[in-house]
Amino acid sequence: MFDELYGQLRKRSPLIHCITNYVAANDCANILLACGASPIMSDSEEEAGEVASGCCGLSVNIGTLNRNRLNAMLIAGKAANEKGIPVVFDPVGAGFAPSRTASALKIAENIRLTAIRGNISEIRAAASGMSAARGVDADPSYSVTEDNINETAEYLKKLSEKTGAIIAATGKIDIVASPEKAFCIRNGSPMLRLVTGAGCQLTAMMTAYIAANPDKPLEAAAAAVCAMGICGEIAEERMNGIDGSGSFRVYLMDAVSRLTPEIFEERGQYDII
Amino acid sequence: MFDELYGQLRKRSPLIHCITNYVAANDCANILLACGASPIMSDSEEEAGEVASGCCGLSVNIGTLNRNRLNAMLIAGKAANEKGIPVVFDPVGAGFAPSRTASALKIAENIRLTAIRGNISEIRAAASGMSAARGVDADPSYSVTEDNINETAEYLKKLSEKTGAIIAATGKIDIVASPEKAFCIRNGSPMLRLVTGAGCQLTAMMTAYIAANPDKPLEAAAAAVCAMGICGEIAEERMNGIDGSGSFRVYLMDAVSRLTPEIFEERGQYDII
Amino acid sequence: MFDELYGQLRKRSPLIHCITNYVAANDCANILLACGASPIMSDSEEEAGEVASGCCGLSVNIGTLNRNRLNAMLIAGKAANEKGIPVVFDPVGAGFAPSRTASALKIAENIRLTAIRGNISEIRAAASGMSAARGVDADPSYSVTEDNINETAEYLKKLSEKTGAIIAATGKIDIVASPEKAFCIRNGSPMLRLVTGAGCQLTAMMTAYIAANPDKPLEAAAAAVCAMGICGEIAEERMNGIDGSGSFRVYLMDAVSRLTPEIFEERGQYDII
Repeated sequence: MFDELYGQLRKRSPLIHCITNYVAANDCANILLACGASPIMSDSEEEAGEVASGCCGLSVNIGTLNRNRLNAMLIAGKAANEKGIPVVFDPVGAGFAPSRTASALKIAENIRLTAIRGNISEIRAAASGMSAARGVDADPSYSVTEDNINETAEYLKKLSEKTGAIIAATGKIDIVASPEKAFCIRNGSPMLRLVTGAGCQLTAMMTAYIAANPDKPLEAAAAAVCAMGICGEIAEERMNGIDGSGSFRVYLMDAVSRLTPEIFEERGQYDII
Repeated sequence: MFDELYGQLRKRSPLIHCITNYVAANDCANILLACGASPIMSDSEEEAGEVASGCCGLSVNIGTLNRNRLNAMLIAGKAANEKGIPVVFDPVGAGFAPSRTASALKIAENIRLTAIRGNISEIRAAASGMSAARGVDADPSYSVTEDNINETAEYLKKLSEKTGAIIAATGKIDIVASPEKAFCIRNGSPMLRLVTGAGCQLTAMMTAYIAANPDKPLEAAAAAVCAMGICGEIAEERMNGIDGSGSFRVYLMDAVSRLTPEIFEERGQYDII
Repeated sequence: MFDELYGQLRKRSPLIHCITNYVAANDCANILLACGASPIMSDSEEEAGEVASGCCGLSVNIGTLNRNRLNAMLIAGKAANEKGIPVVFDPVGAGFAPSRTASALKIAENIRLTAIRGNISEIRAAASGMSAARGVDADPSYSVTEDNINETAEYLKKLSEKTGAIIAATGKIDIVASPEKAFCIRNGSPMLRLVTGAGCQLTAMMTAYIAANPDKPLEAAAAAVCAMGICGEIAEERMNGIDGSGSFRVYLMDAVSRLTPEIFEERGQYDII
């Protein structure tokens, strides 16, 4: 199934508006090109609404946030919502500093999000505010393990129901949840943690997968997560005895640009719970 | 001829002030180092004038523009004009969103530009405003093909006359025009489209070529375009069966840093029309 | 000795707050991950104090400075000083433009710095303001050579005494000085000059070394300088006949991520004067 969603992405080559941090911006633009999409990066209040309106998807990421960039996100989000353009949110660092968490909540409250991608603690911080009156029901530990997969999946399904967004919690094991269904994905490489902004890149790519498959946001989000995991594996396997994190990063981009539907089918490791 | 202009660049090692987008800033600085120049990146209103005054060339690029960075460009442009320092302009995304086009026009109207580099639709959007009262005479299709080369070259020569700037329109075929003469350059690689900011990098490098050869801005701009095309070819030829866009990007920088006058002579494919 | 300090870094994996320029930000974050630390990049006035308070080290770098980022540095520096968190300062470009020098002095005057890393002319510009009333006693030439090592070391020791910060002046020969002692380090590669922000990366990594060894700031700063030099050598040795500055940059990151205490011991070339 993921292979077909990826085929749509290659066929449609959606233009994606990225408002992201300047640390990962170059990598985000390059991964969008590598997966078959086109990036446009624009983060000023003057341009944000116009640019978002002309795109197929909007990706917002709160790393290196400042007041102007936050306003640009809100303006772009509003424009995207009005046009029915999918919006994917990456609450980088939410939960670490109160001001960052507050910014995440502001976005979550003011933009109708199609999907949220982060690690489990970022997701908790960004999403709990959306239902502040009720609090969060489940309270699983902060990392997903084989022991707490089912519990975490239930928690994420509930968050998805509350927020109206697909929830993609990535870590050693990745879970992508709608209110009814969750994909549990086991692809990946520990080397991904040594590349800054690997999560930011995934969020950008996820926006492209969803933009190309707007009727299947759950499956498209899961496909993007699976693609990143597979490409991480391919990049790691390619490393020789003197390669390190620099070469891994290059090989990762190579793998994304050379991914085929066949590789998806062969390597994808996931089940639905 | 291009080999001699490149020899001058290596000899003079000009310091180039880049005000560019944060997506391509790292690549722009690295390509300047790779081609033999030195970069200084500074985009604040406080510093822009002083920094530009101390450099041999100024490169302005409107990707990820905001109000402050636009002001910095205008201040730096004024300082460069007063000192007779060449200014090269990259109207990234002009024509896509009205606010971006307006920014491009503001720059074109307020800074005396030595050269403008973009794809043909960006060039049209950025340059037409400079002669808004008269309109643009020719109206060629948006991409340069073997069928419309002559027509496009004539159009760009007229734009060059109106704007007083060398016009470098890059695409599958590149045309670099002064009012009297146009270089038509056939080097390049389709892989260049998979590297974000390849155009931004070219603009930065073009500033260095012109800064080292201020009396020959047409030839220097054409040499930079030819250099990027040749290096794209070398990088593509080096790719093996598992390399993708990540490795291509690294090989491209390698090729720029290892370019010799001899390679220029052997590989340059251009004619003058 | 350096190997033990590096062992501490790997063991403690300190979280480092980087407020740096957008040109080198991605490389700075990646080198922090590569050497065993964790980066958090945050440069807004709203977040800076909170983020710095939660980290083990703060790195401030004035490339691509603007008013807001400067304020964020001052806020973060104050928070770090209050909590006793080490602060490392990179006065990029100080001395080149008066406004940049003024910003460097503002930081040096308002933040208690643990270490300052720059080339000798940046160091002079940034540090002389701290003792403006007395002027600077010694006035060595702008580059460190075998002929002026002792003189320069004496000068840097005095600067260290005046500023209260470890002074790391890097160039062909690197000198890292406290008031009493100076390390003279002879590792390195000329290729490092072809990678933009190599100095910025070193400053970020130095913050991690010091954060993991807060009681030995001189030795930790010297270890970071030595590490960068060794990794530059390893990267250069790995280059084949067609590799250029792009591959060198990748190999450098590889070498940092694969550095072992043993390599430190084998390759470190320094003496104490």
